[in-house]
Amino acid sequence: VPPTRALTLHRAIGVITFLSDYGLADEFVGVVHAVIAREAPDARVIDVTHGIARHDVRAGALVLRDALPFAPPGVHLAVVDPEVGGGRRAVALRCEEDDRLLVGPDNGLLVPAAERFGGIVEAVEISHSPWRLEPVSATFHGRDLFAPVAGRLAAGDPFAAAGEPLDPGELVALELPEARLEDGTLVVHALTADRFGNVLLDGSAEQLGHVAHLGDEVEVRAAGRTRRARYARTFAEVGDGELLVYEDARRNLAVAVNRGSALDELALAPDAELRLRRADA
Amino acid sequence: VPPTRALTLHRAIGVITFLSDYGLADEFVGVVHAVIAREAPDARVIDVTHGIARHDVRAGALVLRDALPFAPPGVHLAVVDPEVGGGRRAVALRCEEDDRLLVGPDNGLLVPAAERFGGIVEAVEISHSPWRLEPVSATFHGRDLFAPVAGRLAAGDPFAAAGEPLDPGELVALELPEARLEDGTLVVHALTADRFGNVLLDGSAEQLGHVAHLGDEVEVRAAGRTRRARYARTFAEVGDGELLVYEDARRNLAVAVNRGSALDELALAPDAELRLRRADA
Amino acid sequence: VPPTRALTLHRAIGVITFLSDYGLADEFVGVVHAVIAREAPDARVIDVTHGIARHDVRAGALVLRDALPFAPPGVHLAVVDPEVGGGRRAVALRCEEDDRLLVGPDNGLLVPAAERFGGIVEAVEISHSPWRLEPVSATFHGRDLFAPVAGRLAAGDPFAAAGEPLDPGELVALELPEARLEDGTLVVHALTADRFGNVLLDGSAEQLGHVAHLGDEVEVRAAGRTRRARYARTFAEVGDGELLVYEDARRNLAVAVNRGSALDELALAPDAELRLRRADA
Repeated sequence: VPPTRALTLHRAIGVITFLSDYGLADEFVGVVHAVIAREAPDARVIDVTHGIARHDVRAGALVLRDALPFAPPGVHLAVVDPEVGGGRRAVALRCEEDDRLLVGPDNGLLVPAAERFGGIVEAVEISHSPWRLEPVSATFHGRDLFAPVAGRLAAGDPFAAAGEPLDPGELVALELPEARLEDGTLVVHALTADRFGNVLLDGSAEQLGHVAHLGDEVEVRAAGRTRRARYARTFAEVGDGELLVYEDARRNLAVAVNRGSALDELALAPDAELRLRRADA
Repeated sequence: VPPTRALTLHRAIGVITFLSDYGLADEFVGVVHAVIAREAPDARVIDVTHGIARHDVRAGALVLRDALPFAPPGVHLAVVDPEVGGGRRAVALRCEEDDRLLVGPDNGLLVPAAERFGGIVEAVEISHSPWRLEPVSATFHGRDLFAPVAGRLAAGDPFAAAGEPLDPGELVALELPEARLEDGTLVVHALTADRFGNVLLDGSAEQLGHVAHLGDEVEVRAAGRTRRARYARTFAEVGDGELLVYEDARRNLAVAVNRGSALDELALAPDAELRLRRADA
Repeated sequence: VPPTRALTLHRAIGVITFLSDYGLADEFVGVVHAVIAREAPDARVIDVTHGIARHDVRAGALVLRDALPFAPPGVHLAVVDPEVGGGRRAVALRCEEDDRLLVGPDNGLLVPAAERFGGIVEAVEISHSPWRLEPVSATFHGRDLFAPVAGRLAAGDPFAAAGEPLDPGELVALELPEARLEDGTLVVHALTADRFGNVLLDGSAEQLGHVAHLGDEVEVRAAGRTRRARYARTFAEVGDGELLVYEDARRNLAVAVNRGSALDELALAPDAELRLRRADA
């Protein structure tokens, strides 16, 4: 959920955000910045993160969705691209809200963020963009394709000139499970885990509010076992090794073990179902 | 000690420096940049480092103190905040020199830097700043509180409007031992160690100059044992595995083992006392 | 979306690129940025990478050479400097193309990049530059020497004022082997390896084109053994554990093992010779 106070919006132009799984050990991120600086010398580039786990499109999509509402409107470049050099499309998307533009591979990475900004009102396929750097390499589309397109868009070139029109309905979707309420139980799913083993769920605090209150003990049924957890605000509210369900800093519901790994403890496979209900219900 | 050549000062506004223990694996640093970009679109943000050891307030305070004199005056944001979400205050401080502003938690992190800039002439408690992003999360005050305050201050909003006035005398101090001269001996203390095991001391080269000269052999008495070290300018002046005392790049006195770890070798606990004197004295 | 950009008007001033082996765990990179911000408040600083292996001048030189052509003309700062504090010179170089300026230690780091930009037309020794920060430390010339020189140059100060004139012929060269064609065989050498064990070679795809075509099987003779490899465009074209020769994203010839390490597999010493020819030739 984006911040409810209207942020002071000074100007909407010239900002590029950049998220990837490139890491910072190599020069990939720096070279993308270099290309952008040629195309958009006055743009301000904000690195959201380059620490997305390699090829983890879903993790990248969720971080992007949760981080971009805090950024000024502009061009949002994202590259987590396991199929680079294969047949996947490269795209630029225009969102309903603030004319935010998303640039990246057509593998679902951009879709949850676009939905948070009111959905996609226009799309272009940019694989053969006139702005690309020739020869386009087999593996570094960040440099040869995505950076010049993001740069030119940030510099004010028209969206439609970036490539060929594309029906937004043809875009690859991101497969995500969906939380649901079932008679006093909130059924959620494990979406991703961070490096501490805290597991991001697909439910919201608002949904959990229908079955439990902050401070309640909650029954967590997962992988055939039932455990007790505290519905807490901070880790400090439970003992070491104890389970908690909480709203994380990105405003998603999550499950963790204080000074431990919920991922290991609950033996959660990707998309695993967790059933949450008040312990004494 | 700050650089003695007067640096060319072009303008004092619009610079934000940012230090934290967030690391770069996650999107925390990027989201703080995003919020700042909304509040202060023209500010230049300089990342001092985000590699401070997690929750190590003292290490953060010392890096901040030693790095900021090289930065232009402006707003200096720092977040090493083990008590976030608890009762600690959040503050903004105005320093005597150049009206430099410091923003962060009230846990001692900002104090040594403030002292280097002539001390604190004005303070505000910003926990309930009108500029904060609601709802303020339990754990990510960098995004919800510190970033918007730093951004608005860099954009020129008045300091006093950031929160409630606070007596600077009520700020939490950073407990630091203090070096002293004792009749031919310099008594110093281990402040922090870097990842190579080099140990930062609280004395200065000027103080050591009262008991030894560059190139001298020095007796190092620590943890009940006495060893020989070289008072050297560079590591290359001693053999592998040998001890040296030197002025480090941050202009602090430090003790190291060439291609080894002084922290391990000397078995130094935090704040451990070391007694240095010329070997043949 | 911003209104109108007149045309792709690049500007040559005010961009500083920065490459080093400092890593991001400490504040070194941040402090260099801080000093630059004082000297050149309006310059845009692009971090190429700070992940060069510590003291690996050759790896730094090759990354610099391959990355800078993607950056706008400007000042290119690079610091991989194992002899800092010793007798090595510090230099600034002006290149033929676009008046690009290179700043760093005189150890060969800057030379391959300069050659890519048409060679060096003017050089100055900057060890005693009037722009340096006194006292210059023994180990952190990035802060005390290179950053202020790069900043002043980016701010428009005259090149010749940075130090004392130096004959470009006196600069330290980077020793690099050279690929050659020998009667149906391309003789190449191992230059550097990345952290995955992929080995950068000194030959070009153009040269390899004289002895094999994309898709061919190639005989690789190295360290006394002969193996088969595929001359491929992407890793996906060979099976797990199989060898491929390919043009990497930086447009150099390289040899790799799909999901393995060519460095280990081929037991390659630095500068090791590899002889490549078509398998059925």
